[in-house]
Amino acid sequence: MIAGPCSVESKQQTLEIAHAVKEAGAVGLRGGAFKPRTSPYAFQGLAEKGLQILAEAREQTGLAIVTEVMAVDQVKLVTDYADVLQVGARNMQNFNLLNAVGEARKPVLLKRGMSATLEEFLLAAEYIMSKGNSQVMLCERGIRTYEEYVRNTLALAAVPELHRVSHLPVVIDPSQGTGKNHLVDSMCRAAVAAGADGLIIEVHNDPEHAMTDGAQSITPKQFDDMMKAIRRIALAVDREV
Amino acid sequence: MIAGPCSVESKQQTLEIAHAVKEAGAVGLRGGAFKPRTSPYAFQGLAEKGLQILAEAREQTGLAIVTEVMAVDQVKLVTDYADVLQVGARNMQNFNLLNAVGEARKPVLLKRGMSATLEEFLLAAEYIMSKGNSQVMLCERGIRTYEEYVRNTLALAAVPELHRVSHLPVVIDPSQGTGKNHLVDSMCRAAVAAGADGLIIEVHNDPEHAMTDGAQSITPKQFDDMMKAIRRIALAVDREV
Amino acid sequence: MIAGPCSVESKQQTLEIAHAVKEAGAVGLRGGAFKPRTSPYAFQGLAEKGLQILAEAREQTGLAIVTEVMAVDQVKLVTDYADVLQVGARNMQNFNLLNAVGEARKPVLLKRGMSATLEEFLLAAEYIMSKGNSQVMLCERGIRTYEEYVRNTLALAAVPELHRVSHLPVVIDPSQGTGKNHLVDSMCRAAVAAGADGLIIEVHNDPEHAMTDGAQSITPKQFDDMMKAIRRIALAVDREV
Amino acid sequence: MIAGPCSVESKQQTLEIAHAVKEAGAVGLRGGAFKPRTSPYAFQGLAEKGLQILAEAREQTGLAIVTEVMAVDQVKLVTDYADVLQVGARNMQNFNLLNAVGEARKPVLLKRGMSATLEEFLLAAEYIMSKGNSQVMLCERGIRTYEEYVRNTLALAAVPELHRVSHLPVVIDPSQGTGKNHLVDSMCRAAVAAGADGLIIEVHNDPEHAMTDGAQSITPKQFDDMMKAIRRIALAVDREV
Repeated sequence: MIAGPCSVESKQQTLEIAHAVKEAGAVGLRGGAFKPRTSPYAFQGLAEKGLQILAEAREQTGLAIVTEVMAVDQVKLVTDYADVLQVGARNMQNFNLLNAVGEARKPVLLKRGMSATLEEFLLAAEYIMSKGNSQVMLCERGIRTYEEYVRNTLALAAVPELHRVSHLPVVIDPSQGTGKNHLVDSMCRAAVAAGADGLIIEVHNDPEHAMTDGAQSITPKQFDDMMKAIRRIALAVDREV
Repeated sequence: MIAGPCSVESKQQTLEIAHAVKEAGAVGLRGGAFKPRTSPYAFQGLAEKGLQILAEAREQTGLAIVTEVMAVDQVKLVTDYADVLQVGARNMQNFNLLNAVGEARKPVLLKRGMSATLEEFLLAAEYIMSKGNSQVMLCERGIRTYEEYVRNTLALAAVPELHRVSHLPVVIDPSQGTGKNHLVDSMCRAAVAAGADGLIIEVHNDPEHAMTDGAQSITPKQFDDMMKAIRRIALAVDREV
Repeated sequence: MIAGPCSVESKQQTLEIAHAVKEAGAVGLRGGAFKPRTSPYAFQGLAEKGLQILAEAREQTGLAIVTEVMAVDQVKLVTDYADVLQVGARNMQNFNLLNAVGEARKPVLLKRGMSATLEEFLLAAEYIMSKGNSQVMLCERGIRTYEEYVRNTLALAAVPELHRVSHLPVVIDPSQGTGKNHLVDSMCRAAVAAGADGLIIEVHNDPEHAMTDGAQSITPKQFDDMMKAIRRIALAVDREV
Repeated sequence: MIAGPCSVESKQQTLEIAHAVKEAGAVGLRGGAFKPRTSPYAFQGLAEKGLQILAEAREQTGLAIVTEVMAVDQVKLVTDYADVLQVGARNMQNFNLLNAVGEARKPVLLKRGMSATLEEFLLAAEYIMSKGNSQVMLCERGIRTYEEYVRNTLALAAVPELHRVSHLPVVIDPSQGTGKNHLVDSMCRAAVAAGADGLIIEVHNDPEHAMTDGAQSITPKQFDDMMKAIRRIALAVDREV
């Protein structure tokens, strides 16, 4: 269970959320220091300062840090700070970046491209593994369809299908996967019941004022409630959160 | 919980499946007597003879009959035999048919069109309700996307979203919704965890020789195992199967 | 070249448009008397009164009438008035309607469903032809995708592909196929250059006040300009408008 | 008009095609030296050796070289050889690469991502332009949809829409945009009629034995015939090839 803000915005924000999600039972802290943004004029992240804040949050809470690396020349820096390197959906077929994280000695959370087939997804993982890094987690984060009430259509059938054709763990991102915080809780429950190996969730202490992705972030209180709910579902499918 | 064959093929087949799913805990029996087929040269269903077989299955098992009505001039006949009138995905915007089932005195299971938005889906239900029939169940059965490993992409986020904007019960069809029998079990679990009010599943005693949709049908044994699994999940979300 | 209003709204509106498109070179007049509407509370068309208006327009202009038939029990009535029976996208797999127009003795303009494959489209035509009516025109009217700047994505590659696998004429509907009147002109030019056998275009004398689909209707003046442009393109591909 | 092989495979192949397309009227030569491939085990291109071959082809024919740059650390090298830097669809939101080509002093051909909206496409161009490089060409190369008879759905309405909202030239790639060589000719004609400012086409002297994308490559003879056809259409829309 990985939770945290979309972006690292400030030390105070990050630490507050880190403590809250730790208490609710998270084991990983997500948070973007380098942000891939559609517009060049949007907030691009705090860069190394953001990584330092994440490192401090790890020190205080013991949470593993999961953060995105966007470019080959960031791999060394991010590897120095993070426990898990995230490759974002827009970079799923940035093959040079895949090769670079394949040479890193940290686990990689690989997000599915927004219209990638499962075959393309698995071959992207293969780029990483063929360079010697076998610690790859596959993250379904919704695909782009004609649907309008969600930002993406979360394709949960990917969980059993990926388990059928690959040994890699499957993580679900219901925040990006729906784009709506009122749908996150149900999709977390469904993901656990479907057999997902992990969840990565956007939690913000003040979603309405989040610098990025407020509409899909839940509050620490909602996160805590949800954790209780999914613990029960996990038990019902003979797993543990 | 509604289960049964895609098509009513024969009396023996239907009764055998009906008894099996009844024993495993189903309350409804699905089975098509009138089959909407992409090709005019494919098996089109047994028509009234199929309805008679379904009626006999009801008599023997007590299961409610859910079967498709494809045309305005079939409404009277199907109403005479069935407990629930199903309107298929291809007919979701067959407005004359919607009006006709709106005048019938039986509940309607309305399937979402394969690329319908939720707004279009709800307005199709509104056609039925505006004619005086308020017993409408909304059935998500997967949408058409670029994905190749499934026949349709099951959009489970529709469950909480439809519950948010409508009072109507939501039924999930994981058989049509994935098109692959090895994905049905996981998607049933996920649907229950997401809060679905019902499931409709294709069960066949000999999927490999089914006249229609064998690839997405599970066996009575698999159905029985799945029922046990989802009863546990239902308990974990404070519901009962 | 078929042109006319989305809906028949009144005698004056229809006759005015009919004369204008006739003068610009159209050979067919389109116009809906029975309108398939997403909402039951929206304008549903003038029904037989609309058909009578269309018949009068034919008498005055000599234009052939192309109008939609939505239900089996309308087939006889519409056949009495129209020269071409249109089956709408939402009814492309309304198999009973396909059978009914297959028994009619008038040409059929069959619109592609909004997410139909070409195989499904051709098999829908096969329903009509297998009943003895071989006068089927295939109409591409855009498919539903994730794109936002258009109502539908006009898939012009369907023109050469349908010509490759079928002998049936292919008609393009750039009005429905884009949903934006400022894109209609370019898509008409492109359709002619791609080899389309016909065009069906929404023309309205007052698009801003049209009862239906004003945003995708062009004016008679724009239609006239466009006709001049596509005549030149037709010549460049050795055809004639 | 840009034409040439998908990949630079050998000196002989490239020079032969270059001479042929030059003679037919092309002004640019396309050809990949660095190839973004779905699988890490597929042919990845000849790298700098490929660039040298392209440079020799330019010397012999005078054609401008258009070739893909896949990574930030290739920008300098590719800039040394190429006349136009191509950014591929998979890299449309590789923001570091966009920034890097924005700092290069060569024109950029930016391909639309396979499920990018036009807004995302234009904002990707904005990344390049905000770094000071205003010579950006927008290339529509088909979007990913449910359609099965094509590899991608070529969305020609993008031509007039991009012209309406941007001053940038629009280039159409019918080879990638359909994935089928028998559809390329018609889509080139349609693109010109729709107002496209350029075309980029895969031409191979032996499509059946091409190392990459043979199914969508046309022969030099077909290219020559097509050039004649589109010259006529260009005249009909008051343009010149």
